[in-house]
Order: sequence, then structure tokens, then C-alpha cells
Amino acid sequence: MNNFATGSSQDSMNTIIQPLLTDLYQITMAYAYWKSEKVKDFAVFDLFFRRNPFCGEFTIFAGLDDCLHFLERFHFSDSDIEYLRTILPDTIEKEFFTYLKNLTANDITLYALPEGSVVFPRTPLMRIEGPLIVAQLLETTLLNLINFASLMATNAARYKIAAGDVMCVEFGLRRAQGPDGALSASKYSYIGGFEGTSNVLAGKLYNIPVKGTHAHSFVTSFHDTSLLSNKYLAPKSGDKPIDILELAMKYRADVAKILKVVLTEVNDGELAAFVAFAASFPNGFIALVDTYDVKKSGLINFCAVALAINDVGYKSIGIRIDSGDLAYLSKVARGYFTDIGKIYNIPWFEKLLIMASNDINEETILSLNEQEHKIDCFAIGTHLVTCQRQPALGCVYKLVEVNGQARMKLSQDVGKVIIPGKKDLYRLYSKSGDALIDLMQNSDESPPAENKKVLCRHPFEESKRAFVIPSKVEAMLKIYWKDGKVQQNLPNLKTVRETVKESLKSIRSDIKRNLNPTPYKVSVSDSLYTFLHTLWLENAPIGELS
Amino acid sequence: MNNFATGSSQDSMNTIIQPLLTDLYQITMAYAYWKSEKVKDFAVFDLFFRRNPFCGEFTIFAGLDDCLHFLERFHFSDSDIEYLRTILPDTIEKEFFTYLKNLTANDITLYALPEGSVVFPRTPLMRIEGPLIVAQLLETTLLNLINFASLMATNAARYKIAAGDVMCVEFGLRRAQGPDGALSASKYSYIGGFEGTSNVLAGKLYNIPVKGTHAHSFVTSFHDTSLLSNKYLAPKSGDKPIDILELAMKYRADVAKILKVVLTEVNDGELAAFVAFAASFPNGFIALVDTYDVKKSGLINFCAVALAINDVGYKSIGIRIDSGDLAYLSKVARGYFTDIGKIYNIPWFEKLLIMASNDINEETILSLNEQEHKIDCFAIGTHLVTCQRQPALGCVYKLVEVNGQARMKLSQDVGKVIIPGKKDLYRLYSKSGDALIDLMQNSDESPPAENKKVLCRHPFEESKRAFVIPSKVEAMLKIYWKDGKVQQNLPNLKTVRETVKESLKSIRSDIKRNLNPTPYKVSVSDSLYTFLHTLWLENAPIGELS
Repeated sequence: MNNFATGSSQDSMNTIIQPLLTDLYQITMAYAYWKSEKVKDFAVFDLFFRRNPFCGEFTIFAGLDDCLHFLERFHFSDSDIEYLRTILPDTIEKEFFTYLKNLTANDITLYALPEGSVVFPRTPLMRIEGPLIVAQLLETTLLNLINFASLMATNAARYKIAAGDVMCVEFGLRRAQGPDGALSASKYSYIGGFEGTSNVLAGKLYNIPVKGTHAHSFVTSFHDTSLLSNKYLAPKSGDKPIDILELAMKYRADVAKILKVVLTEVNDGELAAFVAFAASFPNGFIALVDTYDVKKSGLINFCAVALAINDVGYKSIGIRIDSGDLAYLSKVARGYFTDIGKIYNIPWFEKLLIMASNDINEETILSLNEQEHKIDCFAIGTHLVTCQRQPALGCVYKLVEVNGQARMKLSQDVGKVIIPGKKDLYRLYSKSGDALIDLMQNSDESPPAENKKVLCRHPFEESKRAFVIPSKVEAMLKIYWKDGKVQQNLPNLKTVRETVKESLKSIRSDIKRNLNPTPYKVSVSDSLYTFLHTLWLENAPIGELS
Repeated sequence: MNNFATGSSQDSMNTIIQPLLTDLYQITMAYAYWKSEKVKDFAVFDLFFRRNPFCGEFTIFAGLDDCLHFLERFHFSDSDIEYLRTILPDTIEKEFFTYLKNLTANDITLYALPEGSVVFPRTPLMRIEGPLIVAQLLETTLLNLINFASLMATNAARYKIAAGDVMCVEFGLRRAQGPDGALSASKYSYIGGFEGTSNVLAGKLYNIPVKGTHAHSFVTSFHDTSLLSNKYLAPKSGDKPIDILELAMKYRADVAKILKVVLTEVNDGELAAFVAFAASFPNGFIALVDTYDVKKSGLINFCAVALAINDVGYKSIGIRIDSGDLAYLSKVARGYFTDIGKIYNIPWFEKLLIMASNDINEETILSLNEQEHKIDCFAIGTHLVTCQRQPALGCVYKLVEVNGQARMKLSQDVGKVIIPGKKDLYRLYSKSGDALIDLMQNSDESPPAENKKVLCRHPFEESKRAFVIPSKVEAMLKIYWKDGKVQQNLPNLKTVRETVKESLKSIRSDIKRNLNPTPYKVSVSDSLYTFLHTLWLENAPIGELS
């Protein structure tokens, strides 16, 4: 059975997702466990984060598909074992290497939320059960795979919320954190709601729409119009090719007059570049207009060429602006397009696409919205793909139970205390379908019932409690991996993208807003509350001031 | 000839470094160039950045080795071509695909600085010459490979400068931007001066020292001392194994008394965990001491076990602290070690390694320095590997010449104006060996001579000029790729790491300091200055206010 429908099974990047992609201490701990006769110890680990990223109040869970691939192929190769022998002390018993060599993830059971779900702090996104040593050996790789995927999907979802109906495409390959950082960025920004990427390999591997225009170097590589050979375009009707450069020059003189621009200031190399691009892509003509000057050159040349190819039956797509005051320039462009459309009686001209692409982030989008920009598409690179505002999500992987006994890690920092024991996670919904609260329970408690009162307690603040009567109860954790097999039909990327949309819809908008969002409530059952605090007191040393 | 000595040729990650790892617009531009009969056009591109990262005044150039690998294997596969057919318009002439299919990087010449060199804004880190279409097609991939590698190496170098003699190891795998983001982080932080990584795969692929301790889950997985089987250790002398748990318990009672800690508050599970680890790694015993309480439990248990195994001939390594006030706790630990060392007459005890690892960044290190911490090793994750302070370096790739004619891209932003033409780069040194200034010249100018006066001008500010008499002149750009072959013996990672050290040594310390560093001077020759400004005026439209 191959449940992997996302295309990532062809992803050669995955060859580095292997058991050695881990911290050395996982291997040394494995040996110490092995020596301590803990081979049969049975552990439960929770994977969770403590704070939502980007000063927000929600997170998108992503990376599950990659984790399942990793489990499926979890195996130390001969060369891995050879390498480990060279870096571990001579005192290691050689039977340990035989033990390692035979390990698989077949005895592991992995529960998780569906990929693309909205998730909240402290709740288990994954629960991993199985032999202590194996479950421990999975830690670092699983964290690596979930942390960036979830961060990226969340970032993209936030940008999309800010952008509203404006299309968003990911243009970040050149600034991403390495080749695979870039691929992950394309994949998870698509999941988060982006409409496409510039990254061709991401398009090929993940079947994501690929978008693009041209670069400044394309424009500057044309010096003037005199030597341009690529200027003939066959009319859509099929007649014999005409010289669109000549036609565009004629239109340019008129357009310059209409828009009150000095004709001699309009760059000829830029016109040649636009003509060459339009002649090559008559159905896909889009022009980068800020190489010399947006108002005095780029827009004039674009309008001239768009009018010229319109004469022979081709509708242009629009422009991209990559520098300057994007709100202002988008309004100028929209004004030009409206004027030209009216004068030449071309109704679609006013609706030409305006794409903007200079260092855009969530805050820029919000500011552009306030300035009532006229942009139809944001092409977003650096800030999106590096998650500049917060470049890491702090997922952790904590032991919560061994051999049926709950485990708890205290800490010098109270914020790092974990919720012990094997737990289930429920999301309780209101009548209108809004998510009201997430509730963690010990796994042996019965699930909360619909339309019945349930007591939800803040895990750490004694006085914060509420009775909730849920109209719907959703058990969030599902079995994804058991007995060496994927246990669910895995969705493709498009479906995960839909899960993100649907999941976000169930969250109240004040939780999702950019400024001072309301925290979503995460609670524990009364029984888990008592259990947690009893165990805490048992483990915490009593303070002493002197 | 295989010049690749860094081990990265075995790096399976490299399979995603391929021609499709590019922006779609590179392919559409290639077609428009091809249609415009520009197949034989000869272009020169510069790869450079505009501002040093991290509010600093220097950058480390890295990623060259990966770029050369990419050139060596640059080739569109049949499946690439098939995919491109599906995403490009039907109107594309099919001969173009044949043309693409036959492309290689054999006609490209690549000049670069040696990997590991200190570099500065606006100077070419690489100069790429060759057929316009091919050189253009390389843009995105080269930028991707240089940007993160250089950013990461620079970040690591800055951390090392802040840390001084304190060892630095990279522990960031779980928080890095994807699996390869993590591998790159390990590799380039090693180049930047780090002493090791926790990432085992990075160790295997790049031959970097691998380091590790154990996790909180290891400690919490031991509940008490009663069931511990892994407690016997054979003395180094070879005698029969003794029960080190028993011995440690005896020492623990004494140590608690000496250090005035309540014995009943010291955690037994933690002691069991430490004993198990020491019994497994008697020559490498290092303990994570903050699971319950550093002062009242972790340090006491550590000292007890260290004293116990010392009795049978083993010297412990030390401790790791992962939470709390690191400066304070390191002083407490050092105090404990000193006291115990004196009382038990074990001189090395006071010098036990103290490793710290909680969310450390450059500022934290500087602050810990001010507090006179007693830490011997920083284990650094998130902030290092994600370059949190500035997660992207803004390298760009700009066309500077076509068919012998200089090209210039103006912009709405003056900061984005480029220095046109094919240029060489020289570094001028003082008698004492300090780098004085970087000088760009047109490639047809003769190199500046040693001990002769040369006029160096600020590229944009007319009045800023200086005569420099260099004691040494270094031509910075060397040919690395020509005629389809690597042209230099490429250094291994260790050697690149030495280049970073040596190159940084030649830069004055006020340029490298964290607070208000002095900008290093980057200049152009008088002739390039004149050329640049003439071309600028030729291309810039005259403004008009109304």
C-alpha cells in the first residue's frame, strides 16, 4: 500500500531524511538505555509547542506526510553503522550495533492531527508510543520535519489572511535557507493558502502552479530598438506576422502625449525588451516596469506594447513593480490603465494585473491595505520563506509516560513544565460551528459528550475554569502509523490546503487577527488537572530561602 | 579530475541542486532571448550583496563549492523538459526544448573569491561570464547556494568572535529550516569557526566533529534507583566491576552535607540516570543537570557520580545547563566543583566542563561575558541556525555587460543602482598586514601596484576620495570554472575554516566589533568612477516636478 499521494515520494530531497539526521545524544542515550536493559521499556512522547509564532494566537500543523515517510524508511544502513563506530567510544559493546542495525519503526504507533489543522500551544500535535529507545531515536528528525513545515504554513496563512482577495505567490527561492529550505517554503506556503510559486522544481515535485515574469537583467540586456529581430507577431486570426515594434512605437508616442510624459525620456531598450517578451509570449505578456522609471518609462512602454498586441488579438496580463512606493505606484498604474482603456475603448485594460514584489511582509500588506493600494497580486520572497519575524517554531518532544507511569520534566522555568501522562485531545464546538476550546484528558477518561456539560480547567491557573456544553466534539488525534503501516489515506497537497482553509474557518476572527488577537483557550479535564498538580508537587524540591 | 575534497560530492542532498531549482522567469526569459536571436550574446553578471548582515560591517563568503558542483552537473533531464512542456504555453517552438536539452555550463567562466574570504558590500563575490542565456539560467540557483551559506558562516563567525576562547558547538538540527537547512547550518557554522555539531549526518557527510550529551527525557525515564541494573563499572585498572550506584549514594550524602543541600530533595531518578550514563560512557560522562533543580539536585547527583567513577579511574567531562540564569548557575557550578575538588584533593575537578545551551545568541554571549560567566562551551541552536537576527542575506545577481557593452540597472531606489561593466577587485593592505580598502576597477585597467599611490574613490559620493599606498595588493577574483572544468584545487572544509580565520585576522577589530562597528571602505578607481557616472546620466530620465 502506498498512501503517499502528495508527490513527495519522488522527492529526492527525502534521501537526507534518514535516522542519522539526528543529534548525537539520541544515539548515546540509546546505548545507555540499551545497557540499562530498557530495550522493552514502553514510552509515550508528546510533540507540542509552547507559544504560537509571529505574536499570533494560532498555528497550522504541517509536515506529517514527511514524518510518515521517515517512519516507513527508518533503518540504519551499513555505512551508518560504520560511521557510528568511528565516532562512539571503543568501550561500546558491539552487540549494540547489531541491535541498531535491526531497528525499524514497526513497533511505533503514531497519533497525529490531520495535516493542515489549526493547532494551539501545549496540546499534543503528535503522540508517539512504542519502545523507549526507538521512540527516543525519532525525536530530532520528527521535530525538524514538523517545526519548519508548520512555521511556514502558519506564516503563509497569516499573509493570506492579511491579503484577503489579493492573490499571493511565493518568489523566495533565491533567499531561502538552502535548496531544501526553498522547496519546503514553496510546498508549505501553498498549503497555507498561496496560489503558486516561482520555484520550478517545487512545481515539478509537488504539482504546485508555477508563476513568473522576467527580471531587470532581461530589460537591461536590450540596449535599443535598432537591432531587435524578435518583433514579428502573427495575429491571433492566423494572418501573416506584423512588426509589433513599429506598431508599439506609434502607440507609444500617443500614450506619452495622453499621459503627459516626455517621449525622449522613455527608455528604448526597455521597449525592445517588452516587444521581445510579448512576441515570445503573446498570451502571457507581463512586464517588469521599474527598471528605469515606472511612471516615465516602464508604464508607457508597457501600454504601448499591450495596445500593439491588442491590435492583433492578444490580451496582455499586466505588470510587476519591484521597487518604490508600491501603494502610490499601483494607483498611478491603475489610473493609466483606466485612462488608456477609456480612450482606446478597451474595457479589460483597466483591469490589467498589477503585481507587486519588493520586500513584502505581513505588516507591509496591512499598511498597503490602509493606503488602498490597487495591487492584484503580491509576489513574496524573503520575509515569507525565511519566516523573518520569527524564524523558528519551538516544537519540543517530551517523554510523558514510561511503562504506564506518567513522567514529568520540571524546569528552572515554569513555562517549560510539561503536562504528563498519555493524553487525548478534543476540540469542542459551538452550535454555530466555532471552535470553543481544546480539551486534554487522560487517555483512560471517556470522551466529552455532545450537548453535555464538561468542566474545562486552565492547566496551571487554579481559578480559571469553565463549564462548556459543546454542540460538537471532535477527537483530534488519529492513528496515522501502526504495525509498520500508514493507517490513513493521506491527502494530496491540494486537500491539505483545503483542510487549512476549513480549519481556519472554524476559528473566530478575533483569534486570527494581526493586532492583539484573542488567545484561544486550551484546557485540561478536572481529573488531568488534579493528576498534573499532584505529580508536580511529588517531583518539585521544596524551596529554601536563606 | 575531481577537485572536490570537501566530502560534499557524496552529499545526497545535492540531487536537488539542479537546473530546475530556479525561478520560472529564468526559463521564460531564456525563451524570449532565444527567440530574439541572443543565443550568441555574451554576458557578464556580478553576484554581490548591498549590506552586511546582523548590523555588522563584514561578511564571510561561502557556498562556492556547491556552486561548482552545480555547474559541473548543469543539465536538463528528459523529465525536466517534459515538465517544462506542460507548464509553458503551447506557442513555444519545439526547437527551444532541443536547445535547452543540450545546454551545459561548459561555456561559462566563473571568477570568485576563495571560499571563506571576508567580503564587503557592492563588490563582486563572483563574476560569471558566458552565453547570456546560460549565465541567466544560473542566477537563482547560485544565489540560493551563496546566500544562506554566507549568512550562516558570517553568523557563526560573529558568535565565535563574541565567545572568544569559549568553545562553540552547533545544536540546531531540530529548529533549523528543514533537513537541508540543518545540514547547511552545521557545515557553514563549522566553516565560520564552530568546533562541532550535534548533527550526526553532518558529521558523516562533512567530517565535522560530532558532540552530544543526553536529554531531559533520558533523566525523567529513570524513576528511582531501585531497579537500576546498569550500575556496575569495571575499574580502568581492569579489576572486576563494582557497584557505582552504591558508591555514588555514599558520596552524595557527603556532598549534600558539604554543599548544604537537603539530601531528601535530591532526585533519585536523576541519580539513577547519571549512574546509567556513566556506566555506559565512563570516559565520556557528561550530565544534564537542570531536569529538576540545578543547585539542589542536578549538581549534587553529578558530583556524586563523578566522585564515584573517579574512584575507579575515570575522569568525568562535565555538565550541561539548559535553563535558568546561565551566568549565575555556571558560577554556582564552578564554586561547587572548586570546593569538592579541594576537599577530595582532585585538582581537575575544578576544571570540569560547564556547557550552557538555552536559547543562546550573540547578544546573550556578550551579556554572559559581562556577567563573568564560568561557561566553557556554548551549545547553540535556534538563533544560530535560523540566523534569527536577520534570516536572509540579500545577494543579487546583476547583468553588468552584454557583448562588451556595460549595462546598468537604475531603480526607484538609489541604493539599488549597480556598478556597471566587467570589473576586477583588489584588496589593498598596510605594512602591518591590515586590509585597508577594497578597490574595484574596470577589467582593462592595470592592477594597482604595491608601494605606489592609487586614487580610491567612493562609488557614489563625489567628495569622498583617498590616496592609498598599499604595501600589498591582492587580486581577489580567481578563475574557478572554465571550459567545463574546475580550475583550482578546492580546499576541504578544515582549510576553508582556516581561510575564514586568516581572512578575519587581516580585518581591523573595530570593523569586527559588535557595537557600532566601523565600516570597511569599498572604493572604485577614478576611471570606473567616471565611467559609472557617465553611464548613469545617460540612462536616467530627467526628473520633472509639477
